[in-house]
Amino acid sequence: MTNEALELSINLVWVMLGAILVFFMHAGFAMVEAGFTRSKNTVNILMKNVLTISIGGIVYFLAGYALMFGDTARGFIGTTGFAMQGVDDIAFFVFQTMFAATCATIISGAVAERTNINAYMAIVVVMTLFIYPVVGHWIWQGDGWITAMGFVDFAGSTVVHLTGAIGALVAAAIIGPRIGKYEDRRVNVLPGHSIPLGALGVFILWLGWFGFNGASTLAADPELVPSVIANTFLSASAGVIATAFYTKFRYSHIDGSLTLNGALAGLVGITAGAANVSLTGAIAIGAIAGPLLVEGVRFIEWKLKIDDPVGAVAVHGLCGIWGTLAVGLFDITGGGGLFYGGGAELLGVQAIGVLAVIGWTSITVGISLSIIKIFVPLRVTQEEEITGLDLTEHGAHAYEYQQDVFKGVAGKNDTFAQRLTTLGAKPHSVHEKQV
Amino acid sequence: MTNEALELSINLVWVMLGAILVFFMHAGFAMVEAGFTRSKNTVNILMKNVLTISIGGIVYFLAGYALMFGDTARGFIGTTGFAMQGVDDIAFFVFQTMFAATCATIISGAVAERTNINAYMAIVVVMTLFIYPVVGHWIWQGDGWITAMGFVDFAGSTVVHLTGAIGALVAAAIIGPRIGKYEDRRVNVLPGHSIPLGALGVFILWLGWFGFNGASTLAADPELVPSVIANTFLSASAGVIATAFYTKFRYSHIDGSLTLNGALAGLVGITAGAANVSLTGAIAIGAIAGPLLVEGVRFIEWKLKIDDPVGAVAVHGLCGIWGTLAVGLFDITGGGGLFYGGGAELLGVQAIGVLAVIGWTSITVGISLSIIKIFVPLRVTQEEEITGLDLTEHGAHAYEYQQDVFKGVAGKNDTFAQRLTTLGAKPHSVHEKQV
Amino acid sequence: MTNEALELSINLVWVMLGAILVFFMHAGFAMVEAGFTRSKNTVNILMKNVLTISIGGIVYFLAGYALMFGDTARGFIGTTGFAMQGVDDIAFFVFQTMFAATCATIISGAVAERTNINAYMAIVVVMTLFIYPVVGHWIWQGDGWITAMGFVDFAGSTVVHLTGAIGALVAAAIIGPRIGKYEDRRVNVLPGHSIPLGALGVFILWLGWFGFNGASTLAADPELVPSVIANTFLSASAGVIATAFYTKFRYSHIDGSLTLNGALAGLVGITAGAANVSLTGAIAIGAIAGPLLVEGVRFIEWKLKIDDPVGAVAVHGLCGIWGTLAVGLFDITGGGGLFYGGGAELLGVQAIGVLAVIGWTSITVGISLSIIKIFVPLRVTQEEEITGLDLTEHGAHAYEYQQDVFKGVAGKNDTFAQRLTTLGAKPHSVHEKQV
Repeated sequence: MTNEALELSINLVWVMLGAILVFFMHAGFAMVEAGFTRSKNTVNILMKNVLTISIGGIVYFLAGYALMFGDTARGFIGTTGFAMQGVDDIAFFVFQTMFAATCATIISGAVAERTNINAYMAIVVVMTLFIYPVVGHWIWQGDGWITAMGFVDFAGSTVVHLTGAIGALVAAAIIGPRIGKYEDRRVNVLPGHSIPLGALGVFILWLGWFGFNGASTLAADPELVPSVIANTFLSASAGVIATAFYTKFRYSHIDGSLTLNGALAGLVGITAGAANVSLTGAIAIGAIAGPLLVEGVRFIEWKLKIDDPVGAVAVHGLCGIWGTLAVGLFDITGGGGLFYGGGAELLGVQAIGVLAVIGWTSITVGISLSIIKIFVPLRVTQEEEITGLDLTEHGAHAYEYQQDVFKGVAGKNDTFAQRLTTLGAKPHSVHEKQV
Repeated sequence: MTNEALELSINLVWVMLGAILVFFMHAGFAMVEAGFTRSKNTVNILMKNVLTISIGGIVYFLAGYALMFGDTARGFIGTTGFAMQGVDDIAFFVFQTMFAATCATIISGAVAERTNINAYMAIVVVMTLFIYPVVGHWIWQGDGWITAMGFVDFAGSTVVHLTGAIGALVAAAIIGPRIGKYEDRRVNVLPGHSIPLGALGVFILWLGWFGFNGASTLAADPELVPSVIANTFLSASAGVIATAFYTKFRYSHIDGSLTLNGALAGLVGITAGAANVSLTGAIAIGAIAGPLLVEGVRFIEWKLKIDDPVGAVAVHGLCGIWGTLAVGLFDITGGGGLFYGGGAELLGVQAIGVLAVIGWTSITVGISLSIIKIFVPLRVTQEEEITGLDLTEHGAHAYEYQQDVFKGVAGKNDTFAQRLTTLGAKPHSVHEKQV
Repeated sequence: MTNEALELSINLVWVMLGAILVFFMHAGFAMVEAGFTRSKNTVNILMKNVLTISIGGIVYFLAGYALMFGDTARGFIGTTGFAMQGVDDIAFFVFQTMFAATCATIISGAVAERTNINAYMAIVVVMTLFIYPVVGHWIWQGDGWITAMGFVDFAGSTVVHLTGAIGALVAAAIIGPRIGKYEDRRVNVLPGHSIPLGALGVFILWLGWFGFNGASTLAADPELVPSVIANTFLSASAGVIATAFYTKFRYSHIDGSLTLNGALAGLVGITAGAANVSLTGAIAIGAIAGPLLVEGVRFIEWKLKIDDPVGAVAVHGLCGIWGTLAVGLFDITGGGGLFYGGGAELLGVQAIGVLAVIGWTSITVGISLSIIKIFVPLRVTQEEEITGLDLTEHGAHAYEYQQDVFKGVAGKNDTFAQRLTTLGAKPHSVHEKQV
């Protein structure tokens, strides 16, 4: 093989590894969102996650990729390559597809536990077909109008995470809070049903992020990849530590859910600048992302009164903005950020890009939901929500221990022990039918 | 380093990554099978899975690899390379070992919740020692008689999945259904105990499949790998979507377990033709695999009256056949499939291969079980099955919440709350002994 | 690109893949330790694990790496490269960071369920800042005094696992057993709360170990990597099988927890010699590690009366020693081990290295704990331990099913069913506050 062919092969392996890792992030999202919501909606949130990557993949193949990376129409939108016609770089397509679905799935957590699954699927289609690809075109296609300003978003603090978070914020606001979240003058905590699932999800996301950021180099470049990976790792670590100590200070205990989310805060924060900042800069970015997350969760929940069960808006939105602006502060490449003698110019450009994406996404998501609402209710009924979406939308329970409760196998006064025994002795039949 | 050495290194990294990912599929199988069965048999199914990869690995090292890839005896079986004597390509051996164990572990799910663990281990030995290697020799060794016909099975829809599924079908039929599955004239659903575990398992399997199919190229070939990965991803996605909508149509709700299995249906379906079909072809293959799975599960359970707790026969068997035949329809390489002007010849060859493997595997598995049955009962006793295999075969519970129930720490009339408190205050001791 | 640049790129991809896999081992440790301890301490053990990798990462960046790989002061300790000043090889740093945190996290399992989280964090700092880097310097820096003797520890049976295990042993001994572990004259089993989490953790660790050992080659060398990977796999497999059969013989059933730990026993065992022994040697090493684990767990628990909830000392300590000595027996490179005609010299060197690390680590950990104890109690109060660390240290439960019990939403005499219904109808609020 020639050296050119060898180089192609090496970069292929690196980008494919990256795509595979980003794919696995969808398992991470699924576990985080399942763990941090109630068990009566677990099958539903798992379905929403597995459908997001699936629908997102097909839609992005059919048109999303073309609108994002096709030949530009005035820097605004792509116009060629539908269903991959005339597109050669399938590896790049695979990598980008996983990103598109990541952007969409951010919404699922924020609207969990009360959103109609058909409405949700429509949101996924709109996000991966149009809203996200347009943002991507502006910033990553090369001819986009935001790119032209010198905007830096290496792996997508803005393109992927902020876009998803704004979609999440608008959708959560329009769909409204879960029953019982805001009662009288109280803000109730509705705790998730399994912290271990949430923790597993966070570890999987962290793992996947090494592909998300690492392979955004698109080449196995020994000059660039190691510091991208190191920055990603150190920022997440700093996010964890900062959140742990900040929650200790703020709430007098190390908060489990927030500290786990602190890893994600650091990861979202470093995503824009992973190739542009120093190791110390990465630690600073993560350390600030942690407390920002903690206060952001509180602000969104208590002041904005928007019910976001998994904290997606704070993690992906606020930390996405922070990470994008932080490039303007900590950049050590090119002209340099504000803290490295490069002036405030890059910071200004970063802010303009952020505002543009917020504007575009909030308007288009708002319009999309108005249209979707004509065809399908955005929200399940009150009764369905109280019963739980697993039973009402999927006719099933997520866990065995929930099953007998609803089926009358055991009498009301039986102890749990007796009912477990019954369960062993005489299997129940939810869907029993005559043969 | 020379270019030849560099090429070797690159391909090594790709194949090792593939082997590692296929290894991880065993975690996926373990989680899927644990999640989709009852909690009283969870330790047992986990043991069966971890023992499968372990026993399979050692047996394949000792003789399976030799019988599969050794010098051929008339295209039927390998004869050299026992305990890797004289074999140089250790990387290929590692990759193939993971495949062999995959084939065997398919059986564990189908015979779950009632099979004696010693009998199961014997089945694993037979499968990885002899039954699977012979199939592999016929199709993948290069000199095999099915290869000679022009049969195409890129990564093993037939070699791995169909072979495993036929083993599963025969074993499940001989061992018989779980107590309570078929009662009077009813077919009872015995729901799994944890959909999140099942969902996690499916995501892990999907992840691993990128290695299963992707590294079956055996080289980091930029011309081939990206479309193999893209086909794998798109077929799985189509499988999920098709299953979700089909179950909505068929059962009036999006079924959780079946939709998750829909991903596997698409993955098994694309495995034979991942390097031979277009992206659109991959989507079509997955989209058909989904409904095929749904009807297949029903047919096996209701008409054949074979109790397959996790749907392994439908997923790996029916979709394995479909995927193998689909190459005859959708092939765009070489002569082309039926839909691409290549005539029905390849389709016929594919059908012959499928029939040969069905015949070989069903006969040898049937004979093997007859022999195993002489030495060890295939099935646990009725009492053991009702109590659960965790307690009777392993002396343990999978979950803490099961423990107090059987130990009398709490009185029969205590509420669960009281018992949990008791649990905190005074640790119980299952195996307490005098020192 | 030149051939040199291509080689750099290939090796980069391999080492980065390794680092990413070793990172994921921390998810494995988290799941193993959560699964094998009680549910009232689950949030706490998850926090300890995520804080270990985070704190370990930052501390190792600031000083640990410098003390380990900096220019040597008389073969005892490194002196340059603090905060990576003047260090170029960021990829190697990332890989090594994951190892450092692995060593530290071994302790968390052994001291689980009763250790103050602040004290634990202090232990992590000391381990990754100083105790582990010094051992690493002695053995892996190149100029270390143990290296100079010809000591072989390819990927860290001693450097990482024994060091961590000695830390675990000393800490568990000083902190003392959990309440209820030793009562009157009995040794009580306090079973873990979720075997599936434990099994998942073991699979993840096994996966990660392919990076731990595989990438310790530091190059994608086709001559070396395949046998390292094969050895790692076969030793783990042999460990599983040997443990399953040995527990069957010893306790008359295949023990679930021990058999899962058997995989780790085989993995720790092969870590020192993965690049030095034959495939058969690897199987032998794993097969011996299994029973050693079983007896070791019993010895530590029953004879030493040290309470190690997850068996960390036996797995990482005894099998770490075994693996290190086994190089002296099974080595087939260089002079050869005792069984391959090389005499007992290497075995002697291995033993000296082991003793040196045991001495160093036990003394420094003992001193460190004495100092830490001045500032923060090592152990939670008796009341906190009985209530559980999740509630007392983190104000939360790990699982939904624990929540209502402590909140009085449901009356004491309600059945579990009624309470679940209540839960659905009227969400509870743990932290409800006035707005």
